[in-house]
Amino acid sequence: MIPEATVARLPVYLRALTALADNGIRTCSSEDLASAAGVNSAKLRKDLSYLGSYGTRGVGYDVDYLRYQIAREIGVTQDWPVVIVGIGNLGHALANYSGFRSRGFRVVALLDADPALIGQTVAGVEVQPFDDLEEIVRTHDVAIGVIATPAFAAQDVADRMVAMGITSILNFAPAVLTVPEGVDVRKVDLSIELQILAYHEQRKAGGATQGAAAAAAATDGGAA
Amino acid sequence: MIPEATVARLPVYLRALTALADNGIRTCSSEDLASAAGVNSAKLRKDLSYLGSYGTRGVGYDVDYLRYQIAREIGVTQDWPVVIVGIGNLGHALANYSGFRSRGFRVVALLDADPALIGQTVAGVEVQPFDDLEEIVRTHDVAIGVIATPAFAAQDVADRMVAMGITSILNFAPAVLTVPEGVDVRKVDLSIELQILAYHEQRKAGGATQGAAAAAAATDGGAA
Repeated sequence: MIPEATVARLPVYLRALTALADNGIRTCSSEDLASAAGVNSAKLRKDLSYLGSYGTRGVGYDVDYLRYQIAREIGVTQDWPVVIVGIGNLGHALANYSGFRSRGFRVVALLDADPALIGQTVAGVEVQPFDDLEEIVRTHDVAIGVIATPAFAAQDVADRMVAMGITSILNFAPAVLTVPEGVDVRKVDLSIELQILAYHEQRKAGGATQGAAAAAAATDGGAA
Repeated sequence: MIPEATVARLPVYLRALTALADNGIRTCSSEDLASAAGVNSAKLRKDLSYLGSYGTRGVGYDVDYLRYQIAREIGVTQDWPVVIVGIGNLGHALANYSGFRSRGFRVVALLDADPALIGQTVAGVEVQPFDDLEEIVRTHDVAIGVIATPAFAAQDVADRMVAMGITSILNFAPAVLTVPEGVDVRKVDLSIELQILAYHEQRKAGGATQGAAAAAAATDGGAA
């Protein structure tokens, strides 16, 4: 069993390797790859050792072969039918997102509860009523559902997905979902990367002193 | 200096603590918080020790105070003026995303090169021509830019942002950006979480054997 933290880094390595391959690079050292993926090289080597991948001394890793090993381990060499529920701006953007298709995720259906959207074509797929969920899950053997609805609708959509046999949910709605044992939910927080930038920006701008002063002012009478 | 990997986890802890606080929980053990954040508790304690936060034996961490410490460290207790360039579906979704505002990120301007979009109001902000970038950065002292354009426009937008003095860029476009030393770029890959779900789904569905067979078929004559 691969540790969860390693599982979470495998897609990041895969993305870095794809960028290297796109630039015509055939072999790379663990230092190169670690730097491209934003981890230290000891951790990278440890992670890859779970895949039985150790590279070649003095040569490094074969970029294409390592991509294949990681993609196989994650399972993105398989075809994953995905359904997206909630075709607002975010649902539109997700339906058009090229990064899903290139990783083996195939959007088989777009569903919404709003009659005004039904029948519209988005990214070549016709928007269907949410009530078609059962038939779609059965026909396409969908295992992964994406929720891009407003917060208030998310739990209801998740309940219906689970009842139809979906066992993995990617949740973009700003809501915490409750699901039974055996169902995986991952929540995307679009502000995480922005917070990491803010951390560095704060330091560039004059550092912890300024930050602490602003923090003290902002939380006056607050948490502390 | 806090290690980069710890910096990347601080927003995740902050999100988990906010969820605990929303549920009325005032104190938590390192195990509770580690589990909510999806890391092991030894790593959590190590990470928090960089902030000088050790909890109280037998009691754990004060949820509100730890939120304050982490938010201060990241800098999200400050006000961060942000500009979004590219107001397609993704730009619309980002402009409406409540998670930015609640973390101290204030969208001060929405810019697009498409004349058809100029003057439209999105999330209460009027879309302005991309050429207004200089004035907006100067007026609002913007340090963080968000790129939500198509791939072909992203590098040009990044160049203009850097020329105007923006030093942190969050890139949603499927393009690799080149920026000078001192400018931080973070790229959001919306498929990362989906890949982590696929890994678990593959194992639920019958595991490595099936995955390996599919992989062998899919890469026939390919990488290996």
